[in-house]
Amino acid sequence: MEYLIYGAPAAGILALIFAFIKAGSVKKQDAGDETMQRIAASIQEGAMAFLKAEYKVLAIFVVVVAGLLAWANSSGTAQSPLIAVSFVIGAIASGLAGWVGMNVATKANVRTTAAAKKSLPAALSVAFNGGTVMGMAVVGLASLGLGVLYIVYTGMFDAVTGVGETSKVNEVGMKTALNVLAGFSMGASSIALFARVGGGIYTKAADVGADLVGKVEQGLPEDSPNNPAVIADNVGDNVGDVAGMGADLFESYVGAIIGTMVLALGFGTVTDGSKSVIPILLPLVIAACGILCSIVGTVFVRAKEGADTTKIQHALDFGAFGAAFVMAGATFGIAKYMWPEAGLKFKGISDPVMWHQIGIATVIGLAIGVLVGMITSYYCSMGKKPVNSIAEQSKTGEATNIIAGLAVGMESTAIPMILIAAGVMSTHAVAGLYGVAIAALGMLSTTGIQLAVDAYGPIADNAGGIAEMSHQEPIVRERTDKLDAVGNTTAAIGKGFAIASAAMTALALFAAFKLTANIGPIDLTQPKVMAGIFVGGMLPFLFSSLAMKAVGNAAMDMIEEVRRQFREIPGLKEGNAEPDSATCVAISTNAAIKEMVLPGLIAVVAPVAVGFIFGKETLGGLLAGVTVCGVLMAIFMSNAGGAWDNAKKSFEGGGFKTSTGEILHKGTPPHDAAVVGDTVGDPFKDTAGPSLNILVKLMSVIALVIAPLLRDWIPLL
Amino acid sequence: MEYLIYGAPAAGILALIFAFIKAGSVKKQDAGDETMQRIAASIQEGAMAFLKAEYKVLAIFVVVVAGLLAWANSSGTAQSPLIAVSFVIGAIASGLAGWVGMNVATKANVRTTAAAKKSLPAALSVAFNGGTVMGMAVVGLASLGLGVLYIVYTGMFDAVTGVGETSKVNEVGMKTALNVLAGFSMGASSIALFARVGGGIYTKAADVGADLVGKVEQGLPEDSPNNPAVIADNVGDNVGDVAGMGADLFESYVGAIIGTMVLALGFGTVTDGSKSVIPILLPLVIAACGILCSIVGTVFVRAKEGADTTKIQHALDFGAFGAAFVMAGATFGIAKYMWPEAGLKFKGISDPVMWHQIGIATVIGLAIGVLVGMITSYYCSMGKKPVNSIAEQSKTGEATNIIAGLAVGMESTAIPMILIAAGVMSTHAVAGLYGVAIAALGMLSTTGIQLAVDAYGPIADNAGGIAEMSHQEPIVRERTDKLDAVGNTTAAIGKGFAIASAAMTALALFAAFKLTANIGPIDLTQPKVMAGIFVGGMLPFLFSSLAMKAVGNAAMDMIEEVRRQFREIPGLKEGNAEPDSATCVAISTNAAIKEMVLPGLIAVVAPVAVGFIFGKETLGGLLAGVTVCGVLMAIFMSNAGGAWDNAKKSFEGGGFKTSTGEILHKGTPPHDAAVVGDTVGDPFKDTAGPSLNILVKLMSVIALVIAPLLRDWIPLL
Repeated sequence: MEYLIYGAPAAGILALIFAFIKAGSVKKQDAGDETMQRIAASIQEGAMAFLKAEYKVLAIFVVVVAGLLAWANSSGTAQSPLIAVSFVIGAIASGLAGWVGMNVATKANVRTTAAAKKSLPAALSVAFNGGTVMGMAVVGLASLGLGVLYIVYTGMFDAVTGVGETSKVNEVGMKTALNVLAGFSMGASSIALFARVGGGIYTKAADVGADLVGKVEQGLPEDSPNNPAVIADNVGDNVGDVAGMGADLFESYVGAIIGTMVLALGFGTVTDGSKSVIPILLPLVIAACGILCSIVGTVFVRAKEGADTTKIQHALDFGAFGAAFVMAGATFGIAKYMWPEAGLKFKGISDPVMWHQIGIATVIGLAIGVLVGMITSYYCSMGKKPVNSIAEQSKTGEATNIIAGLAVGMESTAIPMILIAAGVMSTHAVAGLYGVAIAALGMLSTTGIQLAVDAYGPIADNAGGIAEMSHQEPIVRERTDKLDAVGNTTAAIGKGFAIASAAMTALALFAAFKLTANIGPIDLTQPKVMAGIFVGGMLPFLFSSLAMKAVGNAAMDMIEEVRRQFREIPGLKEGNAEPDSATCVAISTNAAIKEMVLPGLIAVVAPVAVGFIFGKETLGGLLAGVTVCGVLMAIFMSNAGGAWDNAKKSFEGGGFKTSTGEILHKGTPPHDAAVVGDTVGDPFKDTAGPSLNILVKLMSVIALVIAPLLRDWIPLL
Repeated sequence: MEYLIYGAPAAGILALIFAFIKAGSVKKQDAGDETMQRIAASIQEGAMAFLKAEYKVLAIFVVVVAGLLAWANSSGTAQSPLIAVSFVIGAIASGLAGWVGMNVATKANVRTTAAAKKSLPAALSVAFNGGTVMGMAVVGLASLGLGVLYIVYTGMFDAVTGVGETSKVNEVGMKTALNVLAGFSMGASSIALFARVGGGIYTKAADVGADLVGKVEQGLPEDSPNNPAVIADNVGDNVGDVAGMGADLFESYVGAIIGTMVLALGFGTVTDGSKSVIPILLPLVIAACGILCSIVGTVFVRAKEGADTTKIQHALDFGAFGAAFVMAGATFGIAKYMWPEAGLKFKGISDPVMWHQIGIATVIGLAIGVLVGMITSYYCSMGKKPVNSIAEQSKTGEATNIIAGLAVGMESTAIPMILIAAGVMSTHAVAGLYGVAIAALGMLSTTGIQLAVDAYGPIADNAGGIAEMSHQEPIVRERTDKLDAVGNTTAAIGKGFAIASAAMTALALFAAFKLTANIGPIDLTQPKVMAGIFVGGMLPFLFSSLAMKAVGNAAMDMIEEVRRQFREIPGLKEGNAEPDSATCVAISTNAAIKEMVLPGLIAVVAPVAVGFIFGKETLGGLLAGVTVCGVLMAIFMSNAGGAWDNAKKSFEGGGFKTSTGEILHKGTPPHDAAVVGDTVGDPFKDTAGPSLNILVKLMSVIALVIAPLLRDWIPLL
């Protein structure tokens, strides 16, 4: 069974090869006429300039933190300064995945436009291939990085002795290996947080600037080439929705794998009391298998010439859900193959856990993920009750629209939280805390294809922008719009997976932290624990506030600049002069970089400071507070934003039919009210909401990384 | 020292006599001309009609719950069906306090108008006397009710044996007495929740209806007599801000006292290991002393003829803070007098707790309360950075105003949560969980005068409405407006006390629940506990959503009705016809009663269902989640609402000076944008926010009441 250890890196390499081929096939496509290419080049330049600027700042952060990690782990049992190496590799891998994905996405956009001139299926193929590169780059780099480091570290620290059935874990060695490996997760998470926050600020500042001045004040259409902020807006889609999301899922994926491994070492034993390597290895094997399923899934996402949106939707659903379904079955197979026949003893569970229980935990995880996704989709979908209620309340103005949207967002937390709670309890009943972790991993195992579906949305969006700016025929824009709309359900369910898996991954990491820091029961009625929960619960509120303010500040700068250009450049509005897009791109870039620092640092510093000043129990309370409120606020903000967006869209097209049967169209006062709601929702759903998902996991990962240092630490207070 | 047992009922009777005298002095005042009296009569009728309708529904609830309590407690150690009696008395006392307060408030309003014709100090006197009746009725009924029941139950269950220094607690007897007494707190809390939710829905539905149709659509001035919803709006101020707030503080006060007593029994012992009665009795003595301080404080709230607003502000501050300051000192005295010289042993603390430590815990509590209040005041005050930032962002429209307000509200949670956490840790360090409870009680001990200051605001507000509707000279309205503005700081600090004390009271009740239900450590990494925290954290979001939707629904009905009247009653707008105010009052009443049921029931049913189905540990998790998220959401929503309100007001008067030096006035587009923010903030700060304060405590009280039943209960799941 030793060869299984090579599964993860092998699958990782396979994914990267697949990504490489797909990237090649994207590049081969027709890149359109000169105007299109010029616009696309501006977007790509802007996007790459942002990434460069961002990575420059992050490089300082990475070096400083790596130094601190090396210094703090220079001595002590089960510790090694190599953790700094893992951290740096994790950070680089995450950054690289974002860079690769965005590089291809900014090539795929214009080629999608060109393909959309031919047909919808042709455009789907290009856009989805672009998304696939992102998806495969993420899972490939994660799996390769983790797999190689695992092999190196377990060898270096003599983590496993003996061969085959008789192999045994050398506990201190494995503990050291996993502690060091956790640095990889922390590296990935740190980059992810900054990427999400920075990207989120960028995209919304540009969006608000383009909309408020260009569309509202100057009356230009969406994506008008005369609007100076429109290139920045399109850049924003890439840095926010492609690179940001890629980094996000990279860290979820890595966090779930490492959390599961640490719990496996802590809780899983064989009959003679020694630790088994099987449950530690299992997450890597599941990840490898998930990559295979994802690759197969992407092959099924294709549509025949002349296919309509329904068929394309089916193709996407078939690929994504098919992969998840096969993966669920495969988990049973993997567990049956790897697991000892007599089962494995887990601490805290009386009966040994049998192979099929692992499969059941995965299926529960997937079921919870799908259900949370369906609820998310219900609350955000046009034509459904929640969105209609917001559209209806727009009749009485902006205020009632906003109140309705906030109420919908808050209400939408109810069932997902109950489902997550049920998921935690049921998977724990099946296989203990290890079961909870496996369920989270199950949800994330087909990240490859899920991310492909997610990432092709912004590519299609960009393609539409390029079509508009290069004055293509209306049919081209119509097709890219359809492409963007198709897959929304799949993407909504993907968001459900992301939230549910973030919650469960955070719990797994939390449990891993508790184990590593050697904490007894964390009694929540203890004042120091309660104080931790109070402060931890507050952090997502503070963090969201900072993110939203940052968008506000950045947007103000952008608004001033766009107004200045319309004032000072004669003939700009009429299209007789070129807008100065580069300045807008620079404003968004600088603002995003500047504004991402404070919220990012709070997220990194808070758990460290609390842990060393108030002790590990208070840090445990902090994590519980952050997790609960972070997940709640993430669901609230994402869904409120999504619902506002579609409430606005309800007035477009055929118009919104009110409860009294009246049809209200675009341009009516209720539609204007709905536009306000949508604007409020933008930083909710695209900046603060998604960042919280990372915040929750990042804090747990940091706690896990500093856990060995806190083991015997005497708190300052 | 036995005579101290009579302190609480004696002080309660004294407070009621004082209230009676003050009520008489209010009634003696000039009630103005016939028009004023007619308007005032309509408001009073509407308010009383609402209370009657509300109490009718609540009567059914009280009878059903009392029956269930009697049945569930018919057997078992330390249980007695008498708990149903306490529950009913608690509910009646809370209802009665609301009724008395509102009855006088609706008499004081018109008399304040009449007095305002003479001078500002005269108007202050009437309005403050009206508020004093409410304050004294609340603390009087609470202290009398608790005191008498304590005497009766301790006698009945032989809770104390021996006399004087040799007196000892009979543990089972005292446990029974306190369990039964907890019913009083639950009765008060249940009524408070429905009163707050119902009153909050009523007041905002009427407010929105009056504003949107009357002011915005028809262009009538504020409080125009031609606006059919304006009487309902004024009724709303009474049922929401007077009766609702009275019930709210009644339950905080009672909850803090009972929580402290239960903790005293659980943790406090004397050297021979038996329980001491002193820490159990102390809370009642503190409450009695607080009443005396409050009465003395109210005497100092007076202003000489010709006094300006600053002098009046000083008088209020002097009364309220003076009372609190004296109370802090008195606590040291009481503790020194009652406490054994050698100190008292508390479980979990190595050294005996000395008398001065009790005083220190009180001072910490008061300091935290004042600090939280100052932060609240900072975030909501005109001219300060947060409110200015919202006003500034109104320049770019409604959306940026809303985003800024939400960001301010979220940010405003940071320091209060840190302060509360610090308060919990430091008071615990001083005197264990008993110290935490004593700190909460210290904050609430001068509720009498604090509530008087709070309740005089809506009286002044109403007086202004009556002045407008009865066409008084502008100076009258000006004076009542000043009166309303004065004391805002005092009231803001009072809100800080309310939030901080709610958090700490909830923790005390939570600890009391844990003790009574005999739970070991509630380990938050246990999946069933974590599941409880997740679901508990969600409840404040769901609850807020329901409350906000209820306001939306009720407001829609009101808007339709007001529009109908303007459409169908000829000459209404011009003042040539009488509006049908009664129908508007009836709509608000019916909507509020109907809509308060669901959120109210969720709050009551959730802890019971979770406790019996999933067990006491999960219920513990639920309480932690509810407390943290409830306090957070309460601060967020109250402060966002307050900040939006004052951002709007920044444009009134001399106008708002932007960062570029421009002066923006009422009626400009930024002011319109700020009006939208204020409307969104209304259900935030007046419906959902304040209800959450009660929700948090109500759930803990219910848990405490069912704790004996859960002791040996085997969960269904």
